[in-house]
Amino acid sequence: MGFKETKTIDQVLNEVIRYIRHVPRVVEVPISEALGKYLAEDVVARFDVPGFNRSAVDGYAVRSIDTFGASSTNPITLRVIGFLAVGDDPNKYVLNPGEAVEISTGAPLPVNADAVVMYEDTRRSGDFVEVLRPVPPMGNVSRKGEDVKANEVMFRRGMKLLPWDLGVLASMGVQRVRVFLPKIALISTGNELVEVNDVPSSGPPPGKVINSSRFVIEGLVRSLGCELDYLGIVGDDEDKIANIIGNAIRNYDAVITTGGVSVGKVDYTVRAVMKLNPEYLSHGLSIRPGRPNSIAVVNGKPVFMLSGFPVAAATGFDVLVRPILLHMMGGDDDPKPIIKGILTRRVSTPVNTRSFVRVRVYLGKDGRVYVEPLALTGSGILSTLVRGNGILIVPENREGFDEGDEVEVVLIRPLFREEGS
Amino acid sequence: MGFKETKTIDQVLNEVIRYIRHVPRVVEVPISEALGKYLAEDVVARFDVPGFNRSAVDGYAVRSIDTFGASSTNPITLRVIGFLAVGDDPNKYVLNPGEAVEISTGAPLPVNADAVVMYEDTRRSGDFVEVLRPVPPMGNVSRKGEDVKANEVMFRRGMKLLPWDLGVLASMGVQRVRVFLPKIALISTGNELVEVNDVPSSGPPPGKVINSSRFVIEGLVRSLGCELDYLGIVGDDEDKIANIIGNAIRNYDAVITTGGVSVGKVDYTVRAVMKLNPEYLSHGLSIRPGRPNSIAVVNGKPVFMLSGFPVAAATGFDVLVRPILLHMMGGDDDPKPIIKGILTRRVSTPVNTRSFVRVRVYLGKDGRVYVEPLALTGSGILSTLVRGNGILIVPENREGFDEGDEVEVVLIRPLFREEGS
Repeated sequence: MGFKETKTIDQVLNEVIRYIRHVPRVVEVPISEALGKYLAEDVVARFDVPGFNRSAVDGYAVRSIDTFGASSTNPITLRVIGFLAVGDDPNKYVLNPGEAVEISTGAPLPVNADAVVMYEDTRRSGDFVEVLRPVPPMGNVSRKGEDVKANEVMFRRGMKLLPWDLGVLASMGVQRVRVFLPKIALISTGNELVEVNDVPSSGPPPGKVINSSRFVIEGLVRSLGCELDYLGIVGDDEDKIANIIGNAIRNYDAVITTGGVSVGKVDYTVRAVMKLNPEYLSHGLSIRPGRPNSIAVVNGKPVFMLSGFPVAAATGFDVLVRPILLHMMGGDDDPKPIIKGILTRRVSTPVNTRSFVRVRVYLGKDGRVYVEPLALTGSGILSTLVRGNGILIVPENREGFDEGDEVEVVLIRPLFREEGS
Repeated sequence: MGFKETKTIDQVLNEVIRYIRHVPRVVEVPISEALGKYLAEDVVARFDVPGFNRSAVDGYAVRSIDTFGASSTNPITLRVIGFLAVGDDPNKYVLNPGEAVEISTGAPLPVNADAVVMYEDTRRSGDFVEVLRPVPPMGNVSRKGEDVKANEVMFRRGMKLLPWDLGVLASMGVQRVRVFLPKIALISTGNELVEVNDVPSSGPPPGKVINSSRFVIEGLVRSLGCELDYLGIVGDDEDKIANIIGNAIRNYDAVITTGGVSVGKVDYTVRAVMKLNPEYLSHGLSIRPGRPNSIAVVNGKPVFMLSGFPVAAATGFDVLVRPILLHMMGGDDDPKPIIKGILTRRVSTPVNTRSFVRVRVYLGKDGRVYVEPLALTGSGILSTLVRGNGILIVPENREGFDEGDEVEVVLIRPLFREEGS
């Protein structure tokens, strides 16, 4: 097996997307459960929002024509027939020529009113108000439909729903929406793995390793608004692995495995997937860490075969799993926080490989931002993602960066401050 | 009442923090439920991770001293006494002088071995292997404890738990952690409000408005890893509002209200909170939109009085609620995605006011990034947060930006592309 000639991320993504025909599960949920989910439908407005013309200021609702020619030296006097507060029915008052209604910001305009004069431009005396300045039609009025117009397509399929989107949906009278809720199966493979709950407080038995990737992948899947079922640990046995993946691909929208994808002797997972007659299989990827990360398509659904090493698996998730799941939901990736800083040490990376270097980004005592590489290799060293706060991506066409170079880093946590600064 | 002299955000934050003495609720949860939560305790490693020296390559585990002086012209021959795979017990084999064990990447070193010779530096023949190059002590070995060392404080109180953190916790044998889970009460005030579920498909009755802020605030609170109980709509009645806030402050870690904070006649919420004998109250804020946003401290707990207008409320959440809840949990805010772009139209903002201008950021046909202001006023116009994808923040000491200026924008959604580009 092996993978002497690994493909680039872009090559694999372009290829694999042509084979994925499966549309993931869609559920209808109340809008308050839709946060962070991707819309599975367009949403059209049924009515105007707001549903009425309302005052944008505190003052007097008037017929604008009644105020023409008003000035401080030549004020126009109107009779005040009442007061409209926020929430009042606009039909409470009907303006006849020469009349005004006192009005609060947000309150509906009374019948026949088409403008509002601000308090500042009036002088009140008893039941009358003097208007000191004319107001044009629709002056100081928030118009019916200025937020959302009836029949407008406000939301498109594939949009990720953020907090204010839920507010707009509510204001449109939408109580429930259809969103994607892909069900993903996770299978951990490896004879060395034990579950954290089975480990005594002194640590795992000799030679064994706690299955930590499981929690990393679960967190990453949930962050994408998808659901994850963890199907447990399978030993390094080709037939058993083939069996559990084969079942999972029937019941889930996608399958993720960890382990069994390195070169040579321990290629159990890739060989297992070969038995399932995949429409597509790409073994290995030109990234570091994460060269063993592989992907297949079985029955139009993706099978992501990630490395058994947690950092390599997390990198594989970022470059393979996230873009493909987003593609299946018609969504775009969130913008990433990027920061520029000065590299404190030379970083050497293999050519024709996209390298993901874990770094510590800190604000120096001199007020400049510095980027300290934490580890180039050691894809098992998950703690660098806890000690560090950024990822420096070295593109395929570079062999690294020099000390003192200004580099761009994706920040995964807040900036550190240099001690004593 | 009113607020002729509103305070800046920094003033209010500095003041209010001195009055908040309450520590929010802490719960112990399984690590898979801790994603996105803030740690309420330091977490110390009980054992080394990994718990054993393991091979970093495929090859032969050896006693390094046996390989000294080896070269391709003068190879040293060792007897291969077995094979160690990932997950095997290291006690399976004990190396005597002159012996080697074939070994996979990730497998534990056998007893007495202190280095691994890569396949590339060996020549196998039957039960023997010729070593063609010497290997130093610990050569090609991932050391015990290189990920996490026993007794090390790996996580600090206040850290937000990301997917890989859950993996590191698991690898440390940690099954459950104590995290902050503040319980926040939300009270909507306003005679104009109706619940989305009570509105017919033709829209709300004349003069009424669907309570959309409720969903915006709920989404924002949940995004911070906190829990929200929505206590419903209260009309514009000072006593009723005082009563419900008074009860909520006893049972929750913080209270958020919307509405009843504008100037003059409709200050119900601020007046209601005054009745609760707050230790601190600040009415109004030098921001736009969101000038009415106010805050009080009652019994050491914050009462956030947000605007009744959804965009103003969301802005108030960003500048007041989020920093104060983070302060209570000892956490830092997430890094924000910032992008630079060219302003397509002049933006004028009031001086001594921090303005939050909703913008549309797009990649032009010429490959440059452009920033188009959507709305300066209209704090009721929530849809600009759906149509737009960024917020341009104009600081207190500026009165805006000119067309053509390069400005920095916080991206809340992916970049748009100019039509036809």
